[in-house]
Amino acid sequence: MARLVSSLGSFCQLNAFGCLALCYLLLIFLGGVVFMAVEKPLEKELRAEVEELRRSFLQENPCIQESRLRELLGKALAAHSSDVAVLNADAEEKRYDFTSSLYFVIVTLTTIGSDSYTPKSDEAKLFCIFYCTVGIPLTLFLLTLLSSLLLRVITHAPVHVLHYYWGLSHTRAALVHISLLLPLVLSLLFLLPALLVCAVESDWSYLDALFFCFVILSTVGQGGNSLGRSWSPKAKETLELLTTCYLLVGLVVIITLKDTVLQVPQFCAVMRLFSGPQYSELEGIHLNELALSEDNPEDDPQYCQSICTISSTPLELQSPCSDLHSGRTLSLETY
Amino acid sequence: MARLVSSLGSFCQLNAFGCLALCYLLLIFLGGVVFMAVEKPLEKELRAEVEELRRSFLQENPCIQESRLRELLGKALAAHSSDVAVLNADAEEKRYDFTSSLYFVIVTLTTIGSDSYTPKSDEAKLFCIFYCTVGIPLTLFLLTLLSSLLLRVITHAPVHVLHYYWGLSHTRAALVHISLLLPLVLSLLFLLPALLVCAVESDWSYLDALFFCFVILSTVGQGGNSLGRSWSPKAKETLELLTTCYLLVGLVVIITLKDTVLQVPQFCAVMRLFSGPQYSELEGIHLNELALSEDNPEDDPQYCQSICTISSTPLELQSPCSDLHSGRTLSLETY
Repeated sequence: MARLVSSLGSFCQLNAFGCLALCYLLLIFLGGVVFMAVEKPLEKELRAEVEELRRSFLQENPCIQESRLRELLGKALAAHSSDVAVLNADAEEKRYDFTSSLYFVIVTLTTIGSDSYTPKSDEAKLFCIFYCTVGIPLTLFLLTLLSSLLLRVITHAPVHVLHYYWGLSHTRAALVHISLLLPLVLSLLFLLPALLVCAVESDWSYLDALFFCFVILSTVGQGGNSLGRSWSPKAKETLELLTTCYLLVGLVVIITLKDTVLQVPQFCAVMRLFSGPQYSELEGIHLNELALSEDNPEDDPQYCQSICTISSTPLELQSPCSDLHSGRTLSLETY
Repeated sequence: MARLVSSLGSFCQLNAFGCLALCYLLLIFLGGVVFMAVEKPLEKELRAEVEELRRSFLQENPCIQESRLRELLGKALAAHSSDVAVLNADAEEKRYDFTSSLYFVIVTLTTIGSDSYTPKSDEAKLFCIFYCTVGIPLTLFLLTLLSSLLLRVITHAPVHVLHYYWGLSHTRAALVHISLLLPLVLSLLFLLPALLVCAVESDWSYLDALFFCFVILSTVGQGGNSLGRSWSPKAKETLELLTTCYLLVGLVVIITLKDTVLQVPQFCAVMRLFSGPQYSELEGIHLNELALSEDNPEDDPQYCQSICTISSTPLELQSPCSDLHSGRTLSLETY
């Protein structure tokens, strides 16, 4: 029986990466199928509507040359892609004022991207390439540094309290902490801002607002829905500034949450299980680490305020590399 | 003199983070100013053009009611935002076929995002939120695992060769390696694909193509320029598949490059310098680490095929956390 468990264990270790890769391919395939099924009818409807409107327009106005209408439509569409207000082009709407440019800069540096604020001139494109090459890594670096400060407050301190005053082991303290922190922070980060967005954009449903918050903070991109399209330029500026603040604060919180999750030993063990045979050999995965028990006091890490370091190297040579992208200020040390 | 250098050193350590943050704010400000200056005239021009066209259209066709034209334009613009072919709505163009859906899925999971392929129905939005919550971390994890395999081939092996056969110290070997690798890989990743894109889209300039490659691989987003807008559906499908492959391979290479850069000791020292006083205290930054000399043999790390680990913890407890987001399979060990 023990041999069976052991051979099953080594089978899992060897094949976990392959299984994960396979699951991922299935996930992609499933995603493709679902989006195709759900969106196709809607698209068909929209196209039929446009076509119908164009036909009836041409019938009602027989004096119009179809080629001339196409020209107007083409130009209007091109301008609309650039977020130029076509329907009231005579209105005094400013696009590249300073607040909007600032918004564009932040949206670009955080890799969200925006179709409406994309550079059109050659100079702007060239500048954008150089600017992003410097700015994107710098943004990530600064956000990570800020998140490491936040990590002290929202992760290390509570886990410390749970450990010393509640008498929980560190593993259990980390688990209790994350199971309380995750729902709380995610509601503050998504559900509450979505309510505010709903209040601001009266014709958006709550789901629309939630989706907007989600695509902003996941840096996927706005999907054509920008806040305040129908607003006055002044109010739109304020909205853009607020969105920028929300975005930056949200990203710092999300990086901190990621690091909090990565400090739960069970989660680490799962990650390692999937990291492929070349790691398993070196790391010696123990499947019993995955259990939520505290049977292995030697596996129970102690949280402390030191830096994540690399093997036996002196402290000053190691930490920044491992620290840079995980922003960890926590080291796992055995008792 | 020595005291001056030492006090200057500690001043730098204490204020480096503040200086960096200040520089970043200046960078943001500069970006905002430049984009405003460069793009504003272009926008004005485009709007004047549309307005002029609309006026002359209404004059030439006096039979048209302006309100009716607005209705048609509004509908056409809404449809265009959804990437529905307005100008030839009767053509048999498919949008949510399987390849396009697959493309949408990959573009979303890699957080590039696309305005034209955004979910419109409520079901699709809800599905998208759940799908991304699982899919985005999984994508990053898998790309990082793949990049760690690539890191062995394009970083560890060459540095090993430079060290053992050319007799270079590891610090110098890492520097020589990266100064050869970076320009080579960046040209293969951007300059060459841009040539291909240019060949495919005859009305794009080389800069347009380069910008397209850049915004794809930096996951900023396409900025409204998708490949093959005027192509046949079949050719467009192939283009989307090719872009997906380019994207995934490119991201793995970029993560690998990032990890290669992070393994150069001088670069690590610079990162650490900026990571703020709370780190400096713990890590003890030595400014002489920044020098490109080899005066400190004890600071010269040895590259080897082991895993980045955390302080004194047993190997099996540590590595996945630090390893997950940097994908490092390389440990820095002193001689």
